[in-house]
Amino acid sequence: MFQVKWLATRSSRLLGSVTVASEFGGVLSVSLERNGVRTMASKVLNLDNLNPNVIKLQYAVRGPLVIRAAEIEKELQKGAQKPFKKVIRANIGDAHAMGQTPITFIRQVLACVTLPDLIKTGNYPEDVKKRATEILNSMGGKSAGAYTMSHGIEYIRRQVAEYIERRDGHKANWQDVCLSGGASNAIKNVLQLFCNKVNGKTSGVLIPIPQYPLYSASLAEYGLGQVGYYLDEDKDWALQIDELERARKEASSNYAVRALVVINPGNPTGQVLTRDNIEAIIKYAHKNKLFIFADEVYQDNVYAKGSQFFSFKKVLREMGGEYSSGVELASFMSVSKGYAGECGLRGGWMELVNVDPDVQAQLYKAISAMLCPTSLGQTTVSCVAAPPVKGDPSYDQWLKEKTAVLQSLNARADMIAKTFNSMEGFTCNPVQGAMYAFPRFELPQKAIDAAKAAKQPPDVFYAFKLLEETGICVVPGSGFGQRPGTFHFRTTILPQPALLQEMLEIFQQFHKKFTQQYK
Amino acid sequence: MFQVKWLATRSSRLLGSVTVASEFGGVLSVSLERNGVRTMASKVLNLDNLNPNVIKLQYAVRGPLVIRAAEIEKELQKGAQKPFKKVIRANIGDAHAMGQTPITFIRQVLACVTLPDLIKTGNYPEDVKKRATEILNSMGGKSAGAYTMSHGIEYIRRQVAEYIERRDGHKANWQDVCLSGGASNAIKNVLQLFCNKVNGKTSGVLIPIPQYPLYSASLAEYGLGQVGYYLDEDKDWALQIDELERARKEASSNYAVRALVVINPGNPTGQVLTRDNIEAIIKYAHKNKLFIFADEVYQDNVYAKGSQFFSFKKVLREMGGEYSSGVELASFMSVSKGYAGECGLRGGWMELVNVDPDVQAQLYKAISAMLCPTSLGQTTVSCVAAPPVKGDPSYDQWLKEKTAVLQSLNARADMIAKTFNSMEGFTCNPVQGAMYAFPRFELPQKAIDAAKAAKQPPDVFYAFKLLEETGICVVPGSGFGQRPGTFHFRTTILPQPALLQEMLEIFQQFHKKFTQQYK
Repeated sequence: MFQVKWLATRSSRLLGSVTVASEFGGVLSVSLERNGVRTMASKVLNLDNLNPNVIKLQYAVRGPLVIRAAEIEKELQKGAQKPFKKVIRANIGDAHAMGQTPITFIRQVLACVTLPDLIKTGNYPEDVKKRATEILNSMGGKSAGAYTMSHGIEYIRRQVAEYIERRDGHKANWQDVCLSGGASNAIKNVLQLFCNKVNGKTSGVLIPIPQYPLYSASLAEYGLGQVGYYLDEDKDWALQIDELERARKEASSNYAVRALVVINPGNPTGQVLTRDNIEAIIKYAHKNKLFIFADEVYQDNVYAKGSQFFSFKKVLREMGGEYSSGVELASFMSVSKGYAGECGLRGGWMELVNVDPDVQAQLYKAISAMLCPTSLGQTTVSCVAAPPVKGDPSYDQWLKEKTAVLQSLNARADMIAKTFNSMEGFTCNPVQGAMYAFPRFELPQKAIDAAKAAKQPPDVFYAFKLLEETGICVVPGSGFGQRPGTFHFRTTILPQPALLQEMLEIFQQFHKKFTQQYK
Repeated sequence: MFQVKWLATRSSRLLGSVTVASEFGGVLSVSLERNGVRTMASKVLNLDNLNPNVIKLQYAVRGPLVIRAAEIEKELQKGAQKPFKKVIRANIGDAHAMGQTPITFIRQVLACVTLPDLIKTGNYPEDVKKRATEILNSMGGKSAGAYTMSHGIEYIRRQVAEYIERRDGHKANWQDVCLSGGASNAIKNVLQLFCNKVNGKTSGVLIPIPQYPLYSASLAEYGLGQVGYYLDEDKDWALQIDELERARKEASSNYAVRALVVINPGNPTGQVLTRDNIEAIIKYAHKNKLFIFADEVYQDNVYAKGSQFFSFKKVLREMGGEYSSGVELASFMSVSKGYAGECGLRGGWMELVNVDPDVQAQLYKAISAMLCPTSLGQTTVSCVAAPPVKGDPSYDQWLKEKTAVLQSLNARADMIAKTFNSMEGFTCNPVQGAMYAFPRFELPQKAIDAAKAAKQPPDVFYAFKLLEETGICVVPGSGFGQRPGTFHFRTTILPQPALLQEMLEIFQQFHKKFTQQYK
């Protein structure tokens, strides 16, 4: 696989060779080889003796392209002349950064928990005050400044369990709900449990290709085996059991394949799995003794007609028998997505289903050394898991705000797929859910050659050109994985409608010009 | 070393054998052996194939004793008859939980950042509104709901650099400041860089004994070698270079010793290192090619007359020459301690000094996969690093509140050491700084025998008796490490003065009764 290396600029600067506007570099070179200008060999900790897994780890969503985008923003601020006036950050699912406004109920509760005087003095609805009071009563010293339990505040874990019960129509134990600082933390904590050799083989984890690069990054960090299974682009990115089996079988000579990651709704692909598909996956996991990671952080983001979100937990329970009682599952959720989009507040949870109680106790113990997830992230979880209900003073406004966000996302999901499909050389599956489109595009041979000459993968070459010429920042498909010889990128659907329209128009012009240039 | 195993209760419950009030268990058994009642062997993920480092990991500050304390609290709530009416949680440095009130400036800024309407409508001082506005302006979409840079908001990193410059009188680069969700995250991120074999040997890290168990837990988690050096209890827990050398040398046959952790002011020991001592440590680190971890989270908590906090960075810079330019250092700070005590908000930072820029870039890259530390934790960092200054509308109140907290802690530090020293069989070094006393106590042989019969280390046995009979929750010395044959516990100085007095009186009575019983 093509690796992109980060080379810090300051070492170059010491040599007087390169100066780059970035605060800590991000100059690109094209291999993991040293570039021959090392001056730091005398350092106690250097690239020669650094944890090699850290070097391997790549996270394209915040990779070199995004660092370059930040540099360009600074250049623009300083008055640099560019063919565009602003950078459009379509690289990351960061709704508020793209202009989405916060849900009032969440922010009012947060303010009251932070500054409890507001419960008395502020002019807030009764349910806001009641919620803030109940949360404060469940915090040590009635302060958000106290540590909470490592796996979260009991009051909020109970709210999450009730949310899951309403969602699925099946019992959820609040003791099996563990709050976290966003889903990523929880996913990493569970992945880490698999760091062990089994029958002499390194543990391997099945992940979709394309995937959200937290998975590839964490597997690299933990030295676990990445076993990629391709999603079927020709069938709206469906998950095919045959392909799972191919991937697992091929990997079995190297790895003890022990877990299966499914992202539903899909990131970066936007597919929403059918219930039949989930049943088949659960059967497959059971047959092959795979622990399921169900990344369900986009469960509220389903747009396409006929698409519906089914949780793995619900399907598993309804399959009954050995599936219901036997298949081990961790399901992940976040307040960063959905309609709240509160990425910066770092709130999330996981539900553990059928997990060995000894293992669960070990997991909770391991988490305890990290003290606790942020109390205000947990407060946000409370608001998302137990939003106002009909009759509550905040209900009407909450419903209006939530509906507006989701309807607008729905319209944008539609617009983006249509636009890409109207462009020559592009095909884009419908954005059934989540917050991204992952269109496929063709590149003229001359562009591929130019990329080769520039020592960049073709899709990275294309994305850099796009950024430098238009200010649009997307993430090249190679950061998520794609079938060899195909080219994609991920763009979010998050720019507000007018900006998204503008972005798509600029994009079309760029692509025309680009294909013209390399025809 | 004596290991305490966590055994989940639910598996026992399935067998109908044990019922414990705890939500997920915490029954104690005394070895890492299975207890013979395993029913979950058919699970995909079980204790037999779980990451063994997770099993090894222990974090006494939230260990079985603390879980039992939570159970007792629930029992009391349900009306159980005990010889006491409340649990006193002296196990963890959690100031707000023990009644410390938040600093108004911090909470007002947080509320305004959370609910920006308050900047217009709230009756807050101008500097609060200004700060909140500036923080919002540095956030994506001017919302705390946006992701920040993975290493933190530039505006706040610059404030931290200025704080460090004021503290030390030496230049600090904001690019070398990395914000984090509390200090623990940052410490783990840097420790992880050392996961590598050097000349075939596992990397080892020197840590003080006694130590804060985040270190032993993280070293276990990462499979790094723990190389303990004893602090000198007879000399107020001083750090002796001879002992460092002994520890390093003895470990060198097994480990490539590459880093040195120093906790100053000390946790759990409360010592404050002298400037001479720090110079000697830096010389030692330089000579032996050790990367220094300076855990300086208690830098604002210095009480003893004649004691003063010197940062490693300041001393290193003032030593000049190859020390100033050559010794690699990561210094850690948190908003959980000091006078703010905002543990639940999860804010902290590290400063990297003389770190290889390539390594630093790799570290920042690795952090990026975890997206960002919480925006509101970072907001708290802003308030701590750049508090109101003389002339600001909030200054007088801030100073009054800060001084009250620190003076009260000072008085309690004094009271606690005096009380323990007045107790027969106890000696307690002065609490020069931080938030803990770590008294040493003698145990009658009969108590040691009783502990043996109960399959508990004697200090754990003692601490459990203390908890069950008085409701006082302290952490046994074995959770931090202590010289063999000596017994200690860590108690915080955080209960408010009246409660602390009450606690110490109860403690004295208990200890008398205990020694009587086992005489």
